Amino acid sequence: MSDGRKVLVLNGPNLNRLGKREPEIYGAHTLADLESMCVAWGKANGLDVQMRQTNHEGQMIDWLHEAADDGCPVVLNAAGWTHTSVAIGDACAQLTGPLFEVHISNVHAREAFRHHSYVSPYATGGIIVGMGLAGYTYALDSIVDEGEPDLE
Amino acid sequence: MSDGRKVLVLNGPNLNRLGKREPEIYGAHTLADLESMCVAWGKANGLDVQMRQTNHEGQMIDWLHEAADDGCPVVLNAAGWTHTSVAIGDACAQLTGPLFEVHISNVHAREAFRHHSYVSPYATGGIIVGMGLAGYTYALDSIVDEGEPDLE
Amino acid sequence: MSDGRKVLVLNGPNLNRLGKREPEIYGAHTLADLESMCVAWGKANGLDVQMRQTNHEGQMIDWLHEAADDGCPVVLNAAGWTHTSVAIGDACAQLTGPLFEVHISNVHAREAFRHHSYVSPYATGGIIVGMGLAGYTYALDSIVDEGEPDLE
Amino acid sequence: MSDGRKVLVLNGPNLNRLGKREPEIYGAHTLADLESMCVAWGKANGLDVQMRQTNHEGQMIDWLHEAADDGCPVVLNAAGWTHTSVAIGDACAQLTGPLFEVHISNVHAREAFRHHSYVSPYATGGIIVGMGLAGYTYALDSIVDEGEPDLE
Amino acid sequence: MSDGRKVLVLNGPNLNRLGKREPEIYGAHTLADLESMCVAWGKANGLDVQMRQTNHEGQMIDWLHEAADDGCPVVLNAAGWTHTSVAIGDACAQLTGPLFEVHISNVHAREAFRHHSYVSPYATGGIIVGMGLAGYTYALDSIVDEGEPDLE
Amino acid sequence: MSDGRKVLVLNGPNLNRLGKREPEIYGAHTLADLESMCVAWGKANGLDVQMRQTNHEGQMIDWLHEAADDGCPVVLNAAGWTHTSVAIGDACAQLTGPLFEVHISNVHAREAFRHHSYVSPYATGGIIVGMGLAGYTYALDSIVDEGEPDLE
Amino acid sequence: MSDGRKVLVLNGPNLNRLGKREPEIYGAHTLADLESMCVAWGKANGLDVQMRQTNHEGQMIDWLHEAADDGCPVVLNAAGWTHTSVAIGDACAQLTGPLFEVHISNVHAREAFRHHSYVSPYATGGIIVGMGLAGYTYALDSIVDEGEPDLE
Amino acid sequence: MSDGRKVLVLNGPNLNRLGKREPEIYGAHTLADLESMCVAWGKANGLDVQMRQTNHEGQMIDWLHEAADDGCPVVLNAAGWTHTSVAIGDACAQLTGPLFEVHISNVHAREAFRHHSYVSPYATGGIIVGMGLAGYTYALDSIVDEGEPDLE
Amino acid sequence: MSDGRKVLVLNGPNLNRLGKREPEIYGAHTLADLESMCVAWGKANGLDVQMRQTNHEGQMIDWLHEAADDGCPVVLNAAGWTHTSVAIGDACAQLTGPLFEVHISNVHAREAFRHHSYVSPYATGGIIVGMGLAGYTYALDSIVDEGEPDLE
Amino acid sequence: MSDGRKVLVLNGPNLNRLGKREPEIYGAHTLADLESMCVAWGKANGLDVQMRQTNHEGQMIDWLHEAADDGCPVVLNAAGWTHTSVAIGDACAQLTGPLFEVHISNVHAREAFRHHSYVSPYATGGIIVGMGLAGYTYALDSIVDEGEPDLE
Amino acid sequence: MSDGRKVLVLNGPNLNRLGKREPEIYGAHTLADLESMCVAWGKANGLDVQMRQTNHEGQMIDWLHEAADDGCPVVLNAAGWTHTSVAIGDACAQLTGPLFEVHISNVHAREAFRHHSYVSPYATGGIIVGMGLAGYTYALDSIVDEGEPDLE
Amino acid sequence: MSDGRKVLVLNGPNLNRLGKREPEIYGAHTLADLESMCVAWGKANGLDVQMRQTNHEGQMIDWLHEAADDGCPVVLNAAGWTHTSVAIGDACAQLTGPLFEVHISNVHAREAFRHHSYVSPYATGGIIVGMGLAGYTYALDSIVDEGEPDLE
Repeated sequence: MSDGRKVLVLNGPNLNRLGKREPEIYGAHTLADLESMCVAWGKANGLDVQMRQTNHEGQMIDWLHEAADDGCPVVLNAAGWTHTSVAIGDACAQLTGPLFEVHISNVHAREAFRHHSYVSPYATGGIIVGMGLAGYTYALDSIVDEGEPDLE
Repeated sequence: MSDGRKVLVLNGPNLNRLGKREPEIYGAHTLADLESMCVAWGKANGLDVQMRQTNHEGQMIDWLHEAADDGCPVVLNAAGWTHTSVAIGDACAQLTGPLFEVHISNVHAREAFRHHSYVSPYATGGIIVGMGLAGYTYALDSIVDEGEPDLE
Repeated sequence: MSDGRKVLVLNGPNLNRLGKREPEIYGAHTLADLESMCVAWGKANGLDVQMRQTNHEGQMIDWLHEAADDGCPVVLNAAGWTHTSVAIGDACAQLTGPLFEVHISNVHAREAFRHHSYVSPYATGGIIVGMGLAGYTYALDSIVDEGEPDLE
Repeated sequence: MSDGRKVLVLNGPNLNRLGKREPEIYGAHTLADLESMCVAWGKANGLDVQMRQTNHEGQMIDWLHEAADDGCPVVLNAAGWTHTSVAIGDACAQLTGPLFEVHISNVHAREAFRHHSYVSPYATGGIIVGMGLAGYTYALDSIVDEGEPDLE
Repeated sequence: MSDGRKVLVLNGPNLNRLGKREPEIYGAHTLADLESMCVAWGKANGLDVQMRQTNHEGQMIDWLHEAADDGCPVVLNAAGWTHTSVAIGDACAQLTGPLFEVHISNVHAREAFRHHSYVSPYATGGIIVGMGLAGYTYALDSIVDEGEPDLE
Repeated sequence: MSDGRKVLVLNGPNLNRLGKREPEIYGAHTLADLESMCVAWGKANGLDVQMRQTNHEGQMIDWLHEAADDGCPVVLNAAGWTHTSVAIGDACAQLTGPLFEVHISNVHAREAFRHHSYVSPYATGGIIVGMGLAGYTYALDSIVDEGEPDLE
Repeated sequence: MSDGRKVLVLNGPNLNRLGKREPEIYGAHTLADLESMCVAWGKANGLDVQMRQTNHEGQMIDWLHEAADDGCPVVLNAAGWTHTSVAIGDACAQLTGPLFEVHISNVHAREAFRHHSYVSPYATGGIIVGMGLAGYTYALDSIVDEGEPDLE
Repeated sequence: MSDGRKVLVLNGPNLNRLGKREPEIYGAHTLADLESMCVAWGKANGLDVQMRQTNHEGQMIDWLHEAADDGCPVVLNAAGWTHTSVAIGDACAQLTGPLFEVHISNVHAREAFRHHSYVSPYATGGIIVGMGLAGYTYALDSIVDEGEPDLE
Repeated sequence: MSDGRKVLVLNGPNLNRLGKREPEIYGAHTLADLESMCVAWGKANGLDVQMRQTNHEGQMIDWLHEAADDGCPVVLNAAGWTHTSVAIGDACAQLTGPLFEVHISNVHAREAFRHHSYVSPYATGGIIVGMGLAGYTYALDSIVDEGEPDLE
Repeated sequence: MSDGRKVLVLNGPNLNRLGKREPEIYGAHTLADLESMCVAWGKANGLDVQMRQTNHEGQMIDWLHEAADDGCPVVLNAAGWTHTSVAIGDACAQLTGPLFEVHISNVHAREAFRHHSYVSPYATGGIIVGMGLAGYTYALDSIVDEGEPDLE
Repeated sequence: MSDGRKVLVLNGPNLNRLGKREPEIYGAHTLADLESMCVAWGKANGLDVQMRQTNHEGQMIDWLHEAADDGCPVVLNAAGWTHTSVAIGDACAQLTGPLFEVHISNVHAREAFRHHSYVSPYATGGIIVGMGLAGYTYALDSIVDEGEPDLE
Repeated sequence: MSDGRKVLVLNGPNLNRLGKREPEIYGAHTLADLESMCVAWGKANGLDVQMRQTNHEGQMIDWLHEAADDGCPVVLNAAGWTHTSVAIGDACAQLTGPLFEVHISNVHAREAFRHHSYVSPYATGGIIVGMGLAGYTYALDSIVDEGEPDLE
């Protein structure tokens, strides 16, 4: 039975190739590894983490609409669409829960066209870049902590 | 006695005003709050966290040189210098331990001149943007985990 | 029985969320409201109006090809693709009936990236921006009038 | 006797040459034709349409001030000034009734310098481009309908 | 009888609407208020201040020519023409007395197109921006003092 | 009695100051000198040369319309408007006789904003730059020769 | 039975309309003609040519992943996506066999937005532009020759 | 005893060389002259004017923080930092009293890199450019008058 | 005796160094190898291939004129001039036979200044990039086939 | 015997093809026609006109040096080099007699890259564009008149 | 006792790390090595060479002021400030002796932001780039020779 | 007999006019003076210095090829070609000995188009700008010293 707060972890184009794709940039773990990690982390912390991946922009937009309807947090690695899709940016603008933008590699140390993001203006939860798969966990952690650091 | 792995958490101009400065953007906690949090977190996780702040570019460069000599990790919030200082970027290029770039607010949702960073190309540890003070903890966490997510 | 001249009214990404999406920008009416209005208007004026919406670029291209084959007029609100999709612009270039470009909100009063359109060069019927849902009716009206104003 | 709600239909430079000027772009009807059409349309729909044309920027600004004082709607085809006159944009910013921007030809399919408009940010009523003289009627129609489509 | 040194205070488009136009930007005083203030200030300080306003570029150019012939100082608020009129810049280049450029609002905190001025290169007397109506008095004061501060 | 082929020689803003205005750039001759020269040259060569000058853009547009109606050649020195007025460019586009663009000074050796001309695309007769007042005579000469050099 | 080395010939949006779409640019042959030609050519030269077309970006990405897994050569005409899709560029980066970029028309003689390609940096096999359908055969030929010209 | 309202007059890099530095641009008076003038003017008008100068960005930031804490007005000539320092702009953003930006020379008539200011967006008191040392007095005067002109 | 249809294969600056010049980019074959290959290929296919190379722009222009006079096809590798020479582009514009643009290396994967070509707009035969020496043969093949693929 | 004042009329690349090259742009006359015309015109007006043409930049530079040594006037149509050759611009800078820049076609109505000239800053005699071959005669005429119009 | 003509050799940020910092770019010698070399060279050639280094912009400005007061030559390697500091450029503008700009590495072969220098316009002595430490000696040599080569 | 290590000192367009050309920029010495100086300096230091100059780009490319074959050092002042010739940059890329780029005047203090160099990326020996003729000697000196400063 799925319980805990629903969180959508959405991955865009080519991320189904994680582990096979340019491992010197993206590392050796696969998307299945990542999913296991995130779901387990979620279960341990009271989150119902649902990880999805698509190479179809329309599918991604539908998932973002689902999240907007549910008011659930979204962890989004929009991959190549980050830099080119106004349509996905517009879908992000409709989210009612916090949005976290994650990039596995350091996009700011790569080609100039990877420095602009149509997602960032709506990343109310934060942006995590170049921290590998761990970036996803930090986003989940922030959801649990509701964006507040631990200060006592 | 300071023990654990030394980590420099370096803050640039105006961050001494945290809590006073535009709280709707930067939140209500002070730099002292942040320092307590990071030092405590470090102590609990085997890191000797040393937090510093300066409004003098030359001082920041000296600290980066110190880190380069020590080979210790650096968590750097270069604030306004991020976008303008080649000199600080050059100092970052010399670091021998991992570098984490942190911004408290979502700089990518603000003025265009905040979208470019001279630090990012050298942020071998990763970049955390717009996650508030929690961003510092995620950087520290990554130092402890040595950039590896927990996959089992 | 559907009769009258076939007209395709095609809506792009996120427009399925009309009424839910940023109502201060897009108004409170839903896509179903819009469809009712357009179909009714068509029926009253001898047009067989078929309204469609998709978040899939490929689907939109297929519909534009259908229109090109039929030689029927198209009313197109390409939403976010307007500004980014050469592929949709290329499909528009093949239309054999008039093309009307419609935007519900005033895109020229919004972000700079919304000021350029890959559709406009092929909008032989005209472009209607920021007139809300009424924009669709003006396009339909122009189809009935064959682009000619009433001068007597 | 002219009665009904006063509406100013204001035409900028070179539009006095309508019908003579590049008919392949602007059509064969004259400004007098357009005026007859708009006035008649207005009379039939309860609007006191007053059409004016000037090649003097200062005159146009005065008319926009008159409209601002009267709070009446404006239908504005600023022609060449659209792309170059901050002064006219500033006058539009002062309007207290709705502003409609009309272009007879499809300016977005012509030279790049015709793609930017100093009027658009203030076109609270909407923008109609490339629909020939009919564009004026759609603006008038929207004034009568108060920007609301007919949905029942 | 008007006596004292003649000074032309010239105001460009839309400034006749001062007090009515966007009072949150331009304040509540009218052009007549401004004229009273400047003329009175002038009389008290030995200047024959003549305030004028026009929405016609040609009229403004003629006045600048008059000033060039007279060799008298000019205080110029060219409003929207500041950013677009080479012709007015060329007229300023011919002035034989000092030229003061005044803007009531802080144009550098507004749209980018207000950051460039065709007048500034010829503003031999100085430029005063965003000081409200008081900016005019400082220009007049500088004329009396001949650009010299009071150092004893 | 005016006889010969009518030619309009039209001068834009600030050219009424010829001889007074920056003589190191524009020379010592006045507009009246230029008029005498051109009229005399015309009379001797069968042209009815009519020289005009205005600082009002609207006036210039009216004169260009007059020329379009008459089908007569135009020699145009649009001065500052050359670089900024789409409205005058649009009026030039309507001319039915040849158009000659003349600049007294070498605009291409001056500020960058003087390097672009909205008139040039319509200068079917040619463009003469930086040849002083003689430029006008070469334009007239070309009208007489109908653009053909003398080859025997 | 399909035998020979597998080669994927992948065609992007609107290419299903070949022969119908702007024949003055793309010629009169259909995609089916092209497929016949390529398959026949392949069969004669020991290649198992599989031609596919899609208007769905996600589908194209999947096919590129298939090719990456198979290590087979790809001949790619990405049409409009060439100029806009980072996602497809990223998929190309993963290919393990040679990649050939083909454009039927001379994109460098068309609009400026067609001059940039996200595919070209990964076109290890070469780029063939504006040679019509024959471009596909040259790509196939190069696969057979393994990029080596015939020098004896 | 220093009394009156505290005002900080802050001068940036190279201004300690006033009088020695390019006197054809900056005039013959020294910083000490300027200080005497401003202090005396303040004393006569109920202001406790404190003039400071530094070539160290960090020092300037500290002074701006002091002003933010005190809520006192600031007259700032940030010299070269005006055009390059985001850090100083950020410090200005924190001010709680009015900020006046002063430049002795006409920076808008000099190199293009002097036309942009990171200070201007926060210059709530106004901007005075190219009026020599007198610019400082006008800023002080505006502090006394609280930004209101004298209208009776 | 040379017979068959004359074809000029023209090579620009530095191509005489083929085989010596950066072999990791351009390969190990020499220009003489290339010439042998092309001439042999031509002889076998009824073409009189004449290969030439020059480092003198004037020489290249003369050869292009020769081709324009002869109406013969040209295969042109303009090397560095491709990106900088309007004069060579103008010569290409005069060709009366088909023009093929060839680049041995993938210029689109190299420096940005190699992405623009003054030759491409006139490459009526097509453009072949990054296919090594084989690119020349494909151009020759297209000449024989007259740009038509083989479809039966 | 050649007598009169020596004038060099220098023509750049492709102008040897005059009459053959794109006659709809450049007209039907040949370079020989042009030479006859200019030499005859010169003889009749006391000028020793020497017309030359080259496709070699180095040759053109040598001729410009010859003119610099002789102090003789130059009429220069640098064709494609106009827009690309700093070297020719530098040679022009050394001229000691007047320089006339001539273009047969209206380069300002053609591609954007033809709008900039490295020659214009040194065209002390003037610039004549788009007047066909007659442009050369006007330059010669100006040499005879020494740049002075005929005013009596 | 130090005698000879005083020369300041000033080094900017990160140069204290010479020998440690990226030795593949900057070489293995330390700043102390460089100082020894320069001082010794100076002593042998009658110069009192004083080498200094700072990471504080304000300190560098003070040293430049010292040089301006002394009229002594300056050899300046401003490192990262070269590209970003208007303040240092302004200090250089005040120098009264010759200024030499030195860069150890070839900045023009590195990132684009290193290609612009705020120092170069004032480098009256010359600019030496990418010659390693030897660049400093050439600057000193030029001081001794007073910029004159040895010609006999 | 010429002995010592061969060094080519290559000078580009207009440098044959040294001494005659703009002496306020380039000084009074001639190319012959420079040659004497360099040859003499070489002889004294064991170098066989061969100085050449050409206005023909093709000739310069040939000389660079000669140097590439010989592996000898090159001192190159490419003058105007520096900023425009990809072909010469490509020839430099092939050099096998060190390349020194020399400019007599301070090109970075002149027009913007002189700030970019196609030669610099290949200037493995270094770049010397604005040091007059002495720049050549420093290049020669570096050849003798093999790029090493004298440190003992």
